[in-house]
Amino acid sequence: MNKKELTEILNMVANGKMTVDDAMLRIKTKPYEDLGFAKVDTHRSIRQGMAEVIYGAGKTKEQILQICTAILDSGESAVLITRMNEQAAAYVSKHIELEYDEVSKIGIAGTLPQTEKVGKIVVATGGTSDIPIAEEAARTAEFYGNNVIRLYDVGVSGMHRIMDNLDVISTARVIIAAAGMEGALASVIGGMADCPVIAVPTSIGYGASFGGLAALLSMLNSCASGVSVVNIDNGFGAGYLASMINRI
Amino acid sequence: MNKKELTEILNMVANGKMTVDDAMLRIKTKPYEDLGFAKVDTHRSIRQGMAEVIYGAGKTKEQILQICTAILDSGESAVLITRMNEQAAAYVSKHIELEYDEVSKIGIAGTLPQTEKVGKIVVATGGTSDIPIAEEAARTAEFYGNNVIRLYDVGVSGMHRIMDNLDVISTARVIIAAAGMEGALASVIGGMADCPVIAVPTSIGYGASFGGLAALLSMLNSCASGVSVVNIDNGFGAGYLASMINRI
Amino acid sequence: MNKKELTEILNMVANGKMTVDDAMLRIKTKPYEDLGFAKVDTHRSIRQGMAEVIYGAGKTKEQILQICTAILDSGESAVLITRMNEQAAAYVSKHIELEYDEVSKIGIAGTLPQTEKVGKIVVATGGTSDIPIAEEAARTAEFYGNNVIRLYDVGVSGMHRIMDNLDVISTARVIIAAAGMEGALASVIGGMADCPVIAVPTSIGYGASFGGLAALLSMLNSCASGVSVVNIDNGFGAGYLASMINRI
Amino acid sequence: MNKKELTEILNMVANGKMTVDDAMLRIKTKPYEDLGFAKVDTHRSIRQGMAEVIYGAGKTKEQILQICTAILDSGESAVLITRMNEQAAAYVSKHIELEYDEVSKIGIAGTLPQTEKVGKIVVATGGTSDIPIAEEAARTAEFYGNNVIRLYDVGVSGMHRIMDNLDVISTARVIIAAAGMEGALASVIGGMADCPVIAVPTSIGYGASFGGLAALLSMLNSCASGVSVVNIDNGFGAGYLASMINRI
Amino acid sequence: MNKKELTEILNMVANGKMTVDDAMLRIKTKPYEDLGFAKVDTHRSIRQGMAEVIYGAGKTKEQILQICTAILDSGESAVLITRMNEQAAAYVSKHIELEYDEVSKIGIAGTLPQTEKVGKIVVATGGTSDIPIAEEAARTAEFYGNNVIRLYDVGVSGMHRIMDNLDVISTARVIIAAAGMEGALASVIGGMADCPVIAVPTSIGYGASFGGLAALLSMLNSCASGVSVVNIDNGFGAGYLASMINRI
Amino acid sequence: MNKKELTEILNMVANGKMTVDDAMLRIKTKPYEDLGFAKVDTHRSIRQGMAEVIYGAGKTKEQILQICTAILDSGESAVLITRMNEQAAAYVSKHIELEYDEVSKIGIAGTLPQTEKVGKIVVATGGTSDIPIAEEAARTAEFYGNNVIRLYDVGVSGMHRIMDNLDVISTARVIIAAAGMEGALASVIGGMADCPVIAVPTSIGYGASFGGLAALLSMLNSCASGVSVVNIDNGFGAGYLASMINRI
Amino acid sequence: MNKKELTEILNMVANGKMTVDDAMLRIKTKPYEDLGFAKVDTHRSIRQGMAEVIYGAGKTKEQILQICTAILDSGESAVLITRMNEQAAAYVSKHIELEYDEVSKIGIAGTLPQTEKVGKIVVATGGTSDIPIAEEAARTAEFYGNNVIRLYDVGVSGMHRIMDNLDVISTARVIIAAAGMEGALASVIGGMADCPVIAVPTSIGYGASFGGLAALLSMLNSCASGVSVVNIDNGFGAGYLASMINRI
Amino acid sequence: MNKKELTEILNMVANGKMTVDDAMLRIKTKPYEDLGFAKVDTHRSIRQGMAEVIYGAGKTKEQILQICTAILDSGESAVLITRMNEQAAAYVSKHIELEYDEVSKIGIAGTLPQTEKVGKIVVATGGTSDIPIAEEAARTAEFYGNNVIRLYDVGVSGMHRIMDNLDVISTARVIIAAAGMEGALASVIGGMADCPVIAVPTSIGYGASFGGLAALLSMLNSCASGVSVVNIDNGFGAGYLASMINRI
Repeated sequence: MNKKELTEILNMVANGKMTVDDAMLRIKTKPYEDLGFAKVDTHRSIRQGMAEVIYGAGKTKEQILQICTAILDSGESAVLITRMNEQAAAYVSKHIELEYDEVSKIGIAGTLPQTEKVGKIVVATGGTSDIPIAEEAARTAEFYGNNVIRLYDVGVSGMHRIMDNLDVISTARVIIAAAGMEGALASVIGGMADCPVIAVPTSIGYGASFGGLAALLSMLNSCASGVSVVNIDNGFGAGYLASMINRI
Repeated sequence: MNKKELTEILNMVANGKMTVDDAMLRIKTKPYEDLGFAKVDTHRSIRQGMAEVIYGAGKTKEQILQICTAILDSGESAVLITRMNEQAAAYVSKHIELEYDEVSKIGIAGTLPQTEKVGKIVVATGGTSDIPIAEEAARTAEFYGNNVIRLYDVGVSGMHRIMDNLDVISTARVIIAAAGMEGALASVIGGMADCPVIAVPTSIGYGASFGGLAALLSMLNSCASGVSVVNIDNGFGAGYLASMINRI
Repeated sequence: MNKKELTEILNMVANGKMTVDDAMLRIKTKPYEDLGFAKVDTHRSIRQGMAEVIYGAGKTKEQILQICTAILDSGESAVLITRMNEQAAAYVSKHIELEYDEVSKIGIAGTLPQTEKVGKIVVATGGTSDIPIAEEAARTAEFYGNNVIRLYDVGVSGMHRIMDNLDVISTARVIIAAAGMEGALASVIGGMADCPVIAVPTSIGYGASFGGLAALLSMLNSCASGVSVVNIDNGFGAGYLASMINRI
Repeated sequence: MNKKELTEILNMVANGKMTVDDAMLRIKTKPYEDLGFAKVDTHRSIRQGMAEVIYGAGKTKEQILQICTAILDSGESAVLITRMNEQAAAYVSKHIELEYDEVSKIGIAGTLPQTEKVGKIVVATGGTSDIPIAEEAARTAEFYGNNVIRLYDVGVSGMHRIMDNLDVISTARVIIAAAGMEGALASVIGGMADCPVIAVPTSIGYGASFGGLAALLSMLNSCASGVSVVNIDNGFGAGYLASMINRI
Repeated sequence: MNKKELTEILNMVANGKMTVDDAMLRIKTKPYEDLGFAKVDTHRSIRQGMAEVIYGAGKTKEQILQICTAILDSGESAVLITRMNEQAAAYVSKHIELEYDEVSKIGIAGTLPQTEKVGKIVVATGGTSDIPIAEEAARTAEFYGNNVIRLYDVGVSGMHRIMDNLDVISTARVIIAAAGMEGALASVIGGMADCPVIAVPTSIGYGASFGGLAALLSMLNSCASGVSVVNIDNGFGAGYLASMINRI
Repeated sequence: MNKKELTEILNMVANGKMTVDDAMLRIKTKPYEDLGFAKVDTHRSIRQGMAEVIYGAGKTKEQILQICTAILDSGESAVLITRMNEQAAAYVSKHIELEYDEVSKIGIAGTLPQTEKVGKIVVATGGTSDIPIAEEAARTAEFYGNNVIRLYDVGVSGMHRIMDNLDVISTARVIIAAAGMEGALASVIGGMADCPVIAVPTSIGYGASFGGLAALLSMLNSCASGVSVVNIDNGFGAGYLASMINRI
Repeated sequence: MNKKELTEILNMVANGKMTVDDAMLRIKTKPYEDLGFAKVDTHRSIRQGMAEVIYGAGKTKEQILQICTAILDSGESAVLITRMNEQAAAYVSKHIELEYDEVSKIGIAGTLPQTEKVGKIVVATGGTSDIPIAEEAARTAEFYGNNVIRLYDVGVSGMHRIMDNLDVISTARVIIAAAGMEGALASVIGGMADCPVIAVPTSIGYGASFGGLAALLSMLNSCASGVSVVNIDNGFGAGYLASMINRI
Repeated sequence: MNKKELTEILNMVANGKMTVDDAMLRIKTKPYEDLGFAKVDTHRSIRQGMAEVIYGAGKTKEQILQICTAILDSGESAVLITRMNEQAAAYVSKHIELEYDEVSKIGIAGTLPQTEKVGKIVVATGGTSDIPIAEEAARTAEFYGNNVIRLYDVGVSGMHRIMDNLDVISTARVIIAAAGMEGALASVIGGMADCPVIAVPTSIGYGASFGGLAALLSMLNSCASGVSVVNIDNGFGAGYLASMINRI
């Protein structure tokens, strides 16, 4: 159930088109569904305006299916699943409708309503290897109804690649900069853009990259203003936040 | 020179009210003023919509004054100085107009134009000791023309303090959550709010807080969506970004 | 041999119902059994009131069986084995009675005496993926004769889930809070409960969770009083300590 | 106001000895006092059974006095202040009654009610330099009405010192083990005692002790069961928790 | 060629029993054999009194065989190979005489001369899982002609196990203490013994043991004097040094 | 296209031997080829004098082939591929000419022009296990037309091995020192040589080597002047830089 | 004594212009002067072509003077002292000729011979606060006879400042890039330049810069080729190496 | 009381020259003196052959004096105090005989018996700044009756300084190698010596030395055999252990 539906119910009550008892029945389901191993947040779209998401890592394929079903049954039209492996995708798609992308490991169960995409979120990467994380961000943002422009492999070792795309950067409403290794991309874009930049350190690299720590520290210390950081490899978090900002 | 001024000049040229040469003269100052020890970015309000800021730490009082003067001379009406110590404030205020706040160590040189404050940015802290950082954020946001609501000492060890302020949280456009120690405030607020939350880990704590590292890691790993993180004690960065988002 | 049995023997000696020599024979087995690769602590239930436990990781299935047998032979009725893999469980159960749980990797060899369960230990988790660690804690506590209430998937990103269970929390004698990622659950519960909270950081998470380090530091820095911490993923330690406190 | 007082009021209402209105007046103060810079938790002794405590570090002497006064005014007879420096103690004692201990930096404002001390909490240290932290723990426990036995300088480099005190250890209800350097004391005591052991790593040491990190890690990895850990130098936390367990 | 052989040759020259040219021929092989991928130190037993050792990890089985052969050809009667996997052992033993131990992964190529074992080196472990590292130490010490006494599974969680063996500890010339987790064994033994203690942190443990880091830091910070530390899991290094000290 | 070719074209234009239009056609390809997943830098040899290199890790074999082809098509005669696995090598070599080395995982697609090798770059290693990284450096340097001398297994535990090669060291123009474990080789060579030393920490080691961190820190703190450091295991970076310096 | 002087002596001997005994007298001073607390390397300019340097930190002013005198007495015309505090400078300048710079803390004792400066070393900084380290590098390079161009405050948050100086960067023979915070300057310059770039992380920053660690890791992971790194704040090392490369 | 004295008493009893009661009186003082804040180990010279030592850091001057007196009163002729500041030395020397060295911060209270110094312990340092730590080691070793040879400032950046002293190294019975920065000295000496090498990392250095961590890791990873490590700056520990080994 989302905010709009709730408002409609309340209006019908106010207008005498629905009895209080009927409204109670429709509204006062518990704000979460208790599956034992999980308490599924079925009121999140009311409370936070964006539906519950399933973090697929560390859940069995049966658990993912159960949670999907619970969310769809609560009235959501679609549900996003992140870090979903191929086995889980194959299993879930046997039981319910599922669109799955192997690069980003993102699955979408149910049917996305056709709405007009708004704004302009730019998703940039330093290199080719950062693309899976960037796609997680991009597809999350698209799931929530945003226009996304991809700008891949524009790392600072070849500055002309990013200089060539200054117009894309200067017209964005939000930019997601995903980079591993030294993560300088976030600072460079942050210095050029006049919109919020969400930096996503990736675990791409070796040696003293220490699994993304180098990029993380680099981004946290960015000398450019307007840059904030999410967890290493957290493409979903970046996409979700970008949508929040874009749709503000 | 800001965007609006530039547009006016260009319009006058377009309308024949100003010759190209005169426009050239007024526009084509170099985009930065080279003071030797610093290259002051005098075009930043054109390029990024928000004027250059002086990071006071590690600069002598003479350097701060020189940079202030250069920026004000370039046409800005006011300039923000962060991490300004009291000696520097006393020195600068002898030469130019300066408003200085001892708690946040923020100075404002020149005169802030009276503009209507927009939106609603909530600045929350876990404890009393986080207030200096929170004030740096709040005053930065106010400098850039935003309404700010302060919500101090609402840490998670006494949940009723934050529960009591749910309405403030649920009506915010952006929230800044500054907390040291375990930094759980960001996650708890992130779970309640439906707007972007900017988490500022502070260096408040002792022992295994490791100068703010515990709060930083905690915030980066936040299980709540819509939370992003800036550097430890980076109140300015949070306030600047909050303004960007609020004014989007 | 446990404390009660020892007291009985000594009383019989005091009452002349047993000769000193017979008592000597029954008591003065060595306080540990030396198996070469291990010195099994057969007097621990006398010394510490709780029987020896086998940490299964890093031991061969043959070693586990040998130690089990030595403990059971020393007079214990049951022995707890933690971190026991399925191969070891299959092997040991061929030779002696064994109850094995795949989720928590806990095995119980021998027969648990039917005693009345006492007190109320609450075991809470932040998410679904923390359940294996929580179950290790819960089953350990049950092994030592405690009542356990499970409260799973009540992480702080959806505060209403925990608010809904305030009564469970406020009536507990001890609470175990197992959480990965930012581990804020321990602080939030610690701020609500008036009993000891044992925090168990789990290695659930990715990126800057650094294998549970983020949750560990977060919990150590908890702003709530009454919270103490055990090693990352140490469900057994939490369950054992909870039992000690509950049965004090 | 504490639990006992609240129960008395409610009983008087039930017995007709107090009107509902009078009861309302006495009870329904807000659960916290908002001082602007702090939200003082005046209901904590009702909610958690132990009164609010003031963490003195990072607060001005004026702030400490204000919070003290707010708590005493809310009906508590005494309030504990930790990490209080000598300047603050001198200042506060000019305005209200204060007992101050220089070693532990603990102050007690108001008057402790004379109650019978219960149980037996043992506070042990590895060396002489750990005493300030141990005293913070001991005095906190005494503040909350517990008997405390001090066992100082019994580190493992001279095992006979601790062996000589086995009786003290084996008859304790809770033990606090404070040690810096390698922190082995917690494991050794944990292996001897049959009660909960609260390990407090201290920042005593140099070089690879890294400000208490070595002791912290050592204690978290204790091979003895029944040991849990609080933050480095967190004597207060240990004393508070020990009281909770002892008074369970 | 070892020191004794060299002395004999030089004496024969001094006594006229060998011509200078013949001596030259026998002595003046280069101090190392260059195999391209390795420069085998064939004079080490002259220079340092103990023959070259092969660190098997990261070398192919063919490389190990080649180096073995080079060393044996240079006049050594036997050569020690550490961290030798079973494939390499099977391969080498097809070509030259090899004694291989699966637990410690130690191989001995050639024939150890029958010499009287000297001194008394005690090798102790905290637990059963530390045995492979302890065996690497013990077998290394035996290879170099020392008497070794094994004292396994005497960790501090059951102090009576080590107390029972005080005589073994107090009569040792050198003690090797191998322990993972919190590594307290080294300090406890160091506090009892009056001989050098070589501490070997092992990578046994989980969570905050961080691959042996906790034990390493603990041992470096030992409050007992006479304790020094080698690398995590470096059983060979401990055995080699123990031999050096014992044979001084 | 490289600098020389560009100069020739421009000279032909200057001499009237080529029309401006023809020159434009040949020069003004975009400075990078956009393959979607990658923006291949086809002007790098003009801009930086050394052709684009493909970092093979994290790219599919199809991507590697596509990028190779794009570079070769842009006019380069050969392209270097680092960290290329054997599957990728097999696949690429089916479609284009490829020379592949299994030890260093380096592939060279196309045909290296026969040019005279210049200068003298010495590549030294501490042990046998460092050779793969050293070979990556050596082959990279050879690819760019430098003479390379290999000096393997000259670690400081047998100083005579390096003393024996003082002449090689003292006549080098650049030295690459690759070492794991404690990485002392860089300092020792740095103290002997009078040319730049590029230190490459390797991840060879165990325990407290922490994946090369020990060697990295050691090399960064080198007391010898003239030493600089590249990332752990970054043989390519060392070879590339050595070539830059040698050909200056 | 430097290489040139030695060659002259040897030539005079070869030509019969100097007797072997006289040459012996002039050459065969010991290669170092033993001052007890220090062994001064008086032959370094022969062995490595660049004279001994005094690292002033941690030495008393008397020790610095003694070492200066020993070096000047051995025939050097000037000696460089780094990290010299003002007290030491005042003291030394009373006894011998000394030129001292307060910003870089560099002193030069004796008289620099007037030689023609060669090449072009560019020293760039990210901000104003990095200047002291940059000056240490610049003055070191100048001491060894190199031309130095300073390019200060060109950090990546204002890319136009560096773009404006592309010609300076593209004509350098060596570039030193000193930056704190996220250290992105090294990568950006590395991507533009076709000469070796020496990256100097500085300790400028706060919070998660961890004393320069963030910049250090960032620079080690630079995606640009041709970049190597020296220790945090090691301006001297960068200047020395730059000179070595420039004068190759 | 030391071992020799105890043996004498026992012999007198055996020979009838002393009654059992008198012997009891002289021997059976408690093995430690309890001063409240400290339990002074007065039997350590019996148990471990080397008298109790006072670690001065973190003790007040009054505490040091009290412990000194207790030890001297128990029959020791002299007592070693480490890390004693000048104030404490001045205070103690007013009351009892004290020899104090400012460089090493070592004090010796009482009178050292004139005994013949044995063996040969070499104490080497990498630089001048390591001398205070080295002196702590040297004076400790001398206190326990060992001959000590100092070999200062022989770091690996000038290998000839150490090569010149090969004879000193090759004739030592134990070597202590104290070095900061990269700590390579321990490996280089370890590769040359045929006796145990005790490595002492010092906190000398800056930047990525991280307070001695770089040297510590370097020494733990030493590729030379026979090297073990004590804590950063632990000169006392090294001197004590060296004495133990030398006097074995």
